[in-house]
Amino acid sequence: MPMINENISRRGLMLVLSSPSGAGKSTISRKILGRDRNLAMSISATTRPSRPGEVDGKDYIFVGQPEFDKMVETQELLEYATVFGNSYGTPKTPVETALSQGHDVLFDVDWQGTQQLKQNARDDLVSIFILPPSIEELERRLYARAQDSEAVVKGRMAKATSEMSHWAEYDYIIVNHDLDVSVAQVESILAAERLRRDRQIGLSRFIRDLGVRQ
Amino acid sequence: MPMINENISRRGLMLVLSSPSGAGKSTISRKILGRDRNLAMSISATTRPSRPGEVDGKDYIFVGQPEFDKMVETQELLEYATVFGNSYGTPKTPVETALSQGHDVLFDVDWQGTQQLKQNARDDLVSIFILPPSIEELERRLYARAQDSEAVVKGRMAKATSEMSHWAEYDYIIVNHDLDVSVAQVESILAAERLRRDRQIGLSRFIRDLGVRQ
Repeated sequence: MPMINENISRRGLMLVLSSPSGAGKSTISRKILGRDRNLAMSISATTRPSRPGEVDGKDYIFVGQPEFDKMVETQELLEYATVFGNSYGTPKTPVETALSQGHDVLFDVDWQGTQQLKQNARDDLVSIFILPPSIEELERRLYARAQDSEAVVKGRMAKATSEMSHWAEYDYIIVNHDLDVSVAQVESILAAERLRRDRQIGLSRFIRDLGVRQ
Repeated sequence: MPMINENISRRGLMLVLSSPSGAGKSTISRKILGRDRNLAMSISATTRPSRPGEVDGKDYIFVGQPEFDKMVETQELLEYATVFGNSYGTPKTPVETALSQGHDVLFDVDWQGTQQLKQNARDDLVSIFILPPSIEELERRLYARAQDSEAVVKGRMAKATSEMSHWAEYDYIIVNHDLDVSVAQVESILAAERLRRDRQIGLSRFIRDLGVRQ
């Protein structure tokens, strides 16, 4: 049985997960997406060339720079950024379509992307920041991830620390001690936010059918 | 493993459940209280005489009218009301103690009690309204509850309708189709609200220990 109120139409929400690299965000996202049929990953438009195996419209929407610039100009992007000379952004239309159909959209963006999304979609946004359980554990995971030199890991640590300094801009904070608990925590937040009165746009009608005059 | 972030101190929250009689609130409350050791029922002070089996300080705090009036006067009550000539109210001190120790407190109050609690403790309050799945089902439950005359049931229906007209004053709305789902929904809301950044008052310290300068 689903964890939403059946027969009451609802506006979807935008779930933002941010974390420093090494805190477990990607694994958590994958697990949740695999278990929740009403949640889909947001697909970014990018100017970067596609890599072997990547599917246009599924992994990314591959566009040329002029097309991307036009999206920026027409305010079709909810957020965008340039990384190593390539542009990435979130087209507004597919997100708006999903939300209006009662579907939820997951975003894997950093603090800058979150700030842009907030400016463009405040009421639909639910933001979660995932922290590592300790600095030692974060260091361990960044080492485990790639067998790189200490200098490289130190650079990653600095980047992680910089990302974490934005924790106070998020609605919810999860400390990822245990993957299964963290997944359950994100799922609880999603379940709760779906039950918020103001997202259940069909409630007025339902209440009227209960014989209550508005 | 608990569904909270371990080792991070947290301020408790006040969970308000309201519903018309017959929507299943009492059963949901009992189930949740039985499963969540960090949640306790708020204990009301009352001027009504104790009944056989009731324990002072557990079921109610039994007080005389002068003592009750003094609590009102000194603003020691978070909410109060008079029902059939008896006064009932929620003393502030035990609630404040529980919250500051990171414990959550459950309130079973009507829309008027909820409004008073909101005025006195807005940031700590999380409010849930529970609706019956249909007007027919509500009628059936009100009949099943007591083998009373149609006139009595109609009176109860009118009271239920009046209570339901305040649905829009609540943060979350649950439609009680299925008891187990409703219990899980309340538990999700509780889990999510415990993960809100602003309730986790130990986060600044934790973040500092992760090497992040504030």
